[in-house]
Amino acid sequence: MSYASEMLAAVASADRFGTGELAAVIEGCATAAQACTTCADACLAEDDLAGLRLCNALCHTCADVSETTMRTLSRPAHSDHLVLHRMLQACVRSCFACAEECGRHAQHHRHCELCARACRMCLQACTDLLESEAFEELRKLAGG
Amino acid sequence: MSYASEMLAAVASADRFGTGELAAVIEGCATAAQACTTCADACLAEDDLAGLRLCNALCHTCADVSETTMRTLSRPAHSDHLVLHRMLQACVRSCFACAEECGRHAQHHRHCELCARACRMCLQACTDLLESEAFEELRKLAGG
Amino acid sequence: MSYASEMLAAVASADRFGTGELAAVIEGCATAAQACTTCADACLAEDDLAGLRLCNALCHTCADVSETTMRTLSRPAHSDHLVLHRMLQACVRSCFACAEECGRHAQHHRHCELCARACRMCLQACTDLLESEAFEELRKLAGG
Amino acid sequence: MSYASEMLAAVASADRFGTGELAAVIEGCATAAQACTTCADACLAEDDLAGLRLCNALCHTCADVSETTMRTLSRPAHSDHLVLHRMLQACVRSCFACAEECGRHAQHHRHCELCARACRMCLQACTDLLESEAFEELRKLAGG
Repeated sequence: MSYASEMLAAVASADRFGTGELAAVIEGCATAAQACTTCADACLAEDDLAGLRLCNALCHTCADVSETTMRTLSRPAHSDHLVLHRMLQACVRSCFACAEECGRHAQHHRHCELCARACRMCLQACTDLLESEAFEELRKLAGG
Repeated sequence: MSYASEMLAAVASADRFGTGELAAVIEGCATAAQACTTCADACLAEDDLAGLRLCNALCHTCADVSETTMRTLSRPAHSDHLVLHRMLQACVRSCFACAEECGRHAQHHRHCELCARACRMCLQACTDLLESEAFEELRKLAGG
Repeated sequence: MSYASEMLAAVASADRFGTGELAAVIEGCATAAQACTTCADACLAEDDLAGLRLCNALCHTCADVSETTMRTLSRPAHSDHLVLHRMLQACVRSCFACAEECGRHAQHHRHCELCARACRMCLQACTDLLESEAFEELRKLAGG
Repeated sequence: MSYASEMLAAVASADRFGTGELAAVIEGCATAAQACTTCADACLAEDDLAGLRLCNALCHTCADVSETTMRTLSRPAHSDHLVLHRMLQACVRSCFACAEECGRHAQHHRHCELCARACRMCLQACTDLLESEAFEELRKLAGG
């Protein structure tokens, strides 16, 4: 069991999400945030930096969005459900954009390959949570 | 002219948003983030802390979401339009939730009154940008 | 091998620190940041909240300091050695203060027990890095 | 009076620092964090990007360190004095390194000129607070 899972298991209020699904997003976000930060820094050291401008910028925004999503989900006791929902949607899009761009450089740069993979795992975890029972009511309201 | 306006005026890529509108959101987010951080800390020192639990928690999330929105908008050269859009929507909701809850305590605590006001100003600036020409295409796609 | 280790192994510039020691701090910081954020939120839901004011506040600052330390260390290619050194020192102190205070409530609250343990692990990893060869020159300059 | 000053004036616990000096650092940090974020993004769009690698990286770290310093100081009610002290020292160094590097490009890039100025103002405000009465005891302990 991961440390985030242990923390959430110690907090009754995390139950409404399913502790496992919640921990998966939190860990996915933390891993993506770290990978994006190191990938952006590594891009700066590459000879083909000129071709990595967008990659660098998207990595920084993805690190910020992932970290804030992680923090928002790490406060299960008192949160606003719509804020969680919108942050998860922002994180899905941010991870998608970053994974697509890093994916373009994955064959040339191992850090881009790893970063793209971390973003895709985070994107999947966020999507799973968005499609879980926890957000069923919001989906119905949106006619989705 | 504010410092953020000066910075943005030095960056051609900020043009597509209207530098003034962009700077207004950036300043609104920075002010809200600081106000929320101090309000949360001040709540902890109050005698009626038990009634300020939700206020404290929403302040922390609002500080995080505002800061990430500020950072995302401060990168106009290379950004993903949909990420900006979703972060602005998350920020609108987060500021709304925090302003409503702080507003409930505004008569008793000056820090709550000031924090609610900062959140409402930030919410308004985000809404103005979301309704500006910069996001017209996204609104059409959404049938809005 | 953790994801952070894999990322750092893909970046030659991380070598001067010892990838293993660097990854240990990065993971320690990420775990502490998450634990602190959840512990702070869980404190807000406790009956004895009045006795957890300091705990809550120190958790929030420790989450911020740990995250910034994690980010600073995740940029090995272009960093200022003194900034790393001072951030590590800030993180050591922040984790110490938070672990001491959470430790006082560890018998009553499982989240405080887990948070204190995460902070102590982070503190140890930071201390190990500060005492490693990477900072030998700075220690000599300080007469340490 | 700035918004941060108003917030701090509403919180009795901010008194021990001198509300004015505290607000100056908070505003200096917020301005530097925004300037650094936009400067880093603007660097990515420049033709001479290859010469701006270090500038870009230092800007990102300075944005993170400034923001965490701002948050730490925005919690005057319950803080650890040594954490404040070390964060201020990290911020001084980070702003110094960033201002030096941005200063090298100030003649060619207006965003670097503005960013260097914001970092120097933040550095000065941090130094003033470090030299104020609030930290007198720590200076004596250090034999300074």
